[in-house]
Amino acid sequence: MVFKALRSSKVIKKMRTESIEGSDNRKVVQLHYSSICPFSRMVRIALLEQKYEVHLVEEAYVHDNHEILAINPLGTLPFMVFQGNVVIKNLWSIIDYLINTNDASRHTVMPSFFKNFERAEILFNVEWFCTKFFNEVTLPIIQQKIINFTTRRAPPNSTSIRNALRNMHIHMEYLKLSLAESNYIESSMPTIADYSAAAQLSILDYTGDIMWNSINKRIKGWYSLIKSRSSFRAVLRDRILSLSPPSHYEDPDF
Amino acid sequence: MVFKALRSSKVIKKMRTESIEGSDNRKVVQLHYSSICPFSRMVRIALLEQKYEVHLVEEAYVHDNHEILAINPLGTLPFMVFQGNVVIKNLWSIIDYLINTNDASRHTVMPSFFKNFERAEILFNVEWFCTKFFNEVTLPIIQQKIINFTTRRAPPNSTSIRNALRNMHIHMEYLKLSLAESNYIESSMPTIADYSAAAQLSILDYTGDIMWNSINKRIKGWYSLIKSRSSFRAVLRDRILSLSPPSHYEDPDF
Repeated sequence: MVFKALRSSKVIKKMRTESIEGSDNRKVVQLHYSSICPFSRMVRIALLEQKYEVHLVEEAYVHDNHEILAINPLGTLPFMVFQGNVVIKNLWSIIDYLINTNDASRHTVMPSFFKNFERAEILFNVEWFCTKFFNEVTLPIIQQKIINFTTRRAPPNSTSIRNALRNMHIHMEYLKLSLAESNYIESSMPTIADYSAAAQLSILDYTGDIMWNSINKRIKGWYSLIKSRSSFRAVLRDRILSLSPPSHYEDPDF
Repeated sequence: MVFKALRSSKVIKKMRTESIEGSDNRKVVQLHYSSICPFSRMVRIALLEQKYEVHLVEEAYVHDNHEILAINPLGTLPFMVFQGNVVIKNLWSIIDYLINTNDASRHTVMPSFFKNFERAEILFNVEWFCTKFFNEVTLPIIQQKIINFTTRRAPPNSTSIRNALRNMHIHMEYLKLSLAESNYIESSMPTIADYSAAAQLSILDYTGDIMWNSINKRIKGWYSLIKSRSSFRAVLRDRILSLSPPSHYEDPDF
């Protein structure tokens, strides 16, 4: 399986590097994603913020999907395809692409006046939410409350859910501190760090696991700001098969 | 513990962003690292390639070290300190810093003529070795053959070692394919992808787990090229307490 994947990825690697423009001069990208994958959500939001024309291809959220392995031997979602054969296939390549292909006319996900150490701080937060928060909070919730529910293969494991929610409570303190001095995470404007954090929270909000009444006001205010962006509203319209979100889910004034 | 860590990290975040030069105009960095940590090795090599003056601070290789958490809430090694108070503390921030602070006079770890998709391919390989290869091969070997051996807390788990070695065999095929068209990984010159891969291999070679006689010649030739670089030789001189490497370990003509 791995070998097949590797050979196929070699074929796809015949890359074209010319700039890729849509009919109205907008950059076009095919985003292979899953609506229950927080990284897919983050990247979709960032692409919409950068005014890409995003063509969505929904993929199953499984890490041993043969077809995905054929394109991306890491087996992860999302990945981006340009003109059918240029693939940016792993999270950190996508993030590098997003933060380094800005031009002045577009909204940026990493302000160009952020130099070395400010960039490092933004990327620290991205890594915090994409690894620590994801592994300790979002992933067990996705497994127990979405995958186990929709596949009916196993009942949710309440210990795993309880641990994830306890971790979430602790990690919200980190988010609160990150918002202590500014409207956005370590910044006066939204960056890839905010989209990475809000994408994680949006999954937990879908499953009804964020108790907004007891959440710190700075966090709630920040999430409300993100929620009112058209990029984020587009993502919040996704529905997960046979699982409905709470009524406040799409409402910026929740 | 997490709260203490967070507060301390806030103190450290009062960052200075002026350029930092050593007495002879060389950039100076304090690298907190562990010689059994492949990421520490990778970053040390990259810094030496970029002619930084690297001051090493050896840290224990444990993920719940309170002092490390106080600086880096992800709890990972390595991290970099400039002039005592500027910290770049997570892997992907460090990689971003290394690949974006090149200037023409220095050897680069990411050629500046590599644009979007070539950059993405290099970073794909970095992520492959830093996540997939590390988790499936290097980490279990570090745990079973180094940590369990030096702490004498538990005997090595032979099933875990056997699985890791089986994974290594498969993943070496990926490395072979990555070297199929060039001397270095997807490139005619060494990049951060080569240092990330060679750093992982150097740990496995220290523990005597690479059977060079049966390894593909392209891989052996590539490792020999990397081994002959002065940056890599410096790293190979490190010794792990009470554990000696095989006799060929430092020899570029192994």
